Amino acid sequence: MRCAVISRKFDLRSYYGKALAKIADRIESIDHPVTDGAEAVRIALAWHPHPDAFERYPNLKAVCTIGAGADNVLACPSLPPHVNVVRVVDPAQAEMMAGFVAWHVIWHQRKFATYMQQQRDRIWRRLEQRPASDVPVSILGYGKIGERVATQLAGLGFPVNVWSRTPKSAAPGLRAFAGRNGLFAMLAETEVLVNLLPLTPETRGLIDAEVFSAMKHGGYLIQTGRGEQMVEADLLAALENGQLSGASLDVFAVEPLPADHIFWHHPQILMTPHDACDVSFTAVANTLVATAAAIEAGEIPPHAVDRSRGY
Amino acid sequence: MRCAVISRKFDLRSYYGKALAKIADRIESIDHPVTDGAEAVRIALAWHPHPDAFERYPNLKAVCTIGAGADNVLACPSLPPHVNVVRVVDPAQAEMMAGFVAWHVIWHQRKFATYMQQQRDRIWRRLEQRPASDVPVSILGYGKIGERVATQLAGLGFPVNVWSRTPKSAAPGLRAFAGRNGLFAMLAETEVLVNLLPLTPETRGLIDAEVFSAMKHGGYLIQTGRGEQMVEADLLAALENGQLSGASLDVFAVEPLPADHIFWHHPQILMTPHDACDVSFTAVANTLVATAAAIEAGEIPPHAVDRSRGY
Repeated sequence: MRCAVISRKFDLRSYYGKALAKIADRIESIDHPVTDGAEAVRIALAWHPHPDAFERYPNLKAVCTIGAGADNVLACPSLPPHVNVVRVVDPAQAEMMAGFVAWHVIWHQRKFATYMQQQRDRIWRRLEQRPASDVPVSILGYGKIGERVATQLAGLGFPVNVWSRTPKSAAPGLRAFAGRNGLFAMLAETEVLVNLLPLTPETRGLIDAEVFSAMKHGGYLIQTGRGEQMVEADLLAALENGQLSGASLDVFAVEPLPADHIFWHHPQILMTPHDACDVSFTAVANTLVATAAAIEAGEIPPHAVDRSRGY
Repeated sequence: MRCAVISRKFDLRSYYGKALAKIADRIESIDHPVTDGAEAVRIALAWHPHPDAFERYPNLKAVCTIGAGADNVLACPSLPPHVNVVRVVDPAQAEMMAGFVAWHVIWHQRKFATYMQQQRDRIWRRLEQRPASDVPVSILGYGKIGERVATQLAGLGFPVNVWSRTPKSAAPGLRAFAGRNGLFAMLAETEVLVNLLPLTPETRGLIDAEVFSAMKHGGYLIQTGRGEQMVEADLLAALENGQLSGASLDVFAVEPLPADHIFWHHPQILMTPHDACDVSFTAVANTLVATAAAIEAGEIPPHAVDRSRGY
């Protein structure tokens, strides 16, 4: 099946070259814009597609993203309503995210920033040790990744709350909350807030001053959803007034973060460059193959996004 | 029961004041040297006791430490051979250690030192993501704490080996090694080495150039046992020649680490001030009460050290 590889941000076909070569007998990958035989294109691999990208492919049936978040494809104005958008669901990615989030939670719990400052200053001073059971962690987003993150943190001894848009049953040991009222009930029992939500109209700007104020004083934010979900000015104010003691940010409203942005040198902010967890090359290739098979069978591909809710 | 509280390093009775107050109806705590009624002392709470401390108490039956390691009490020349030395075994401490070690393993796996340097330099650059399954971790010491650490790391996806002096059966998913030959077989499959061993004549100086050379190139050391177990010059040489990429050190041959020691400002060393995990105040108090009960019943106290092996 012919596949258009579309990104205005980087060279996807080169990046995924080895993985695409392994499935070349099933998927013929061609860089966008495909000039010869565009009508034969039935599948696309896309990340931040050009606004008019999909106009060229009249027989397109499905677009595969290269990650768990499909917002950048769904926002493309030329995406036809009938085309399925397929997320990559990768257990290895959930495991990677679980380790990444656990690291930031423990960074806060065990005050590693203070230890590192003490080392620079050659100060030998033991710190108060707070057990994990004293540090409640709440997770926004309870899909496959959220479940793995939550379970791992619970195993480390943290009290863990999980929040989703609609009520879900949570794994043993977790407390589940849902909806707007549930969010604020949960925040009252939250020291560390972990954002794993997909970007939708409902989650845009969700993490704001009201959210920070509802958390325990001196709380901590771990931001790994999408930058557009957090109000930057509100974060800076919450750090300034002490409502938050710090934040770990992996995603930003503008990426790469501009060199003059205050986050780079903010003493309470730990930054990573949207690098919490990639899906593996293999998972992307497998998703393409499974999606092509579903198209051939006339079925909805596995992990197709519900376009009415946006994830 | 009358208890002598003995330390030449700090004011134990003040530090454990609240916990000792709660058990005052069972244990009468008096600072060493007890001058009036020393012959009534049958139990001691000790950490780094004075060399002649135990000469004063002819009816002493047991000495409780304040942690998992009893080496500082066992090394006291005035400790009579028949006196039981009791370690504190605290599940909360094992949990705290599991989080501490997991943090350092992920620090290495996910190259957080590089991210932090990039942030200082305002560089937006994504790094290669190595899954946990590519980073084998080996744990020296498989007691209560080692088991909890190993299980937690396995849950995060790391391949985990455990090593003990004598063969033990390991929990599912772990590979168990034992003895000198087992140690070197394990090291060949080790990227991150975690030391949780007790200090004994056998473990003194154990972690040396030969150990580092047997590990995978570019490996990492997490040192949370006792400082005397590691040859400092060999660590520095292994960091210098690239055999190790870095080390996290919580314990040192001399503590506090002298201000002019090279470790403070070594770019590949992350230091904490012997602070990986305290036992809780409650666990220390509970140990004293259980030990007193055993003395009264004429029994060997729970968690008494086998003095022939040293732990």
